[in-house]
Amino acid sequence: MKTINLANKYEMFNEFWTPKIIGELNDQFIKIAKVKDDFVWHSHKNEDELFIVQKGTLFIDFRDRTETINPGEIIIVPKGVEHRPRTNGEEVYILLIEPKSTKHTGNIIDEKTVTNLEWI
Amino acid sequence: MKTINLANKYEMFNEFWTPKIIGELNDQFIKIAKVKDDFVWHSHKNEDELFIVQKGTLFIDFRDRTETINPGEIIIVPKGVEHRPRTNGEEVYILLIEPKSTKHTGNIIDEKTVTNLEWI
Repeated sequence: MKTINLANKYEMFNEFWTPKIIGELNDQFIKIAKVKDDFVWHSHKNEDELFIVQKGTLFIDFRDRTETINPGEIIIVPKGVEHRPRTNGEEVYILLIEPKSTKHTGNIIDEKTVTNLEWI
Repeated sequence: MKTINLANKYEMFNEFWTPKIIGELNDQFIKIAKVKDDFVWHSHKNEDELFIVQKGTLFIDFRDRTETINPGEIIIVPKGVEHRPRTNGEEVYILLIEPKSTKHTGNIIDEKTVTNLEWI
């Protein structure tokens, strides 16, 4: 029940593709991440996923097209839909909201998979 | 699965305290609202509520203090906690995420209560 300043939270870490938990509501986590270059193709069987871009330009590849998401823009990736977040070499800051059960690499276990997400 | 531009959505309406639905995920709605001056004191019995401020300064009064939320800041109001959102005479743009079951005036039925929220 305290105001959370996102810029202050982003200053607390530097790793890419390693979401940090900053809050929870209704059995979901609110996470922030710094991302750069390509993530893995994956899907989430049971969970819709919300991306809110805070800084930079995020691209999400779908099998049939690519969506571009800038600050002030959001996108919802429905459950079961294969997607690959990526950036154009740029460091991009995102905010994610998804059920606590969500693994960030979805159905894929990869070198990027982080199993124990950290609260900051 | 399309990028949603928040500024474009805010241009689509002018009423205050009348949340519009812009998306859904995991049985919740993503809503935006323009707010100004005082809302009603209320609580939500079963739902946590996330406020993300997009423009202006939002104040949320709790019974023991007031939180200030600026753009780039967020706050989670846990279920059951009485709160009153308000602004200092300024028009403030907010994004809300809460379960579909949530009524924006919570336990209070008031002249501000909107029963049928509109999708935009």
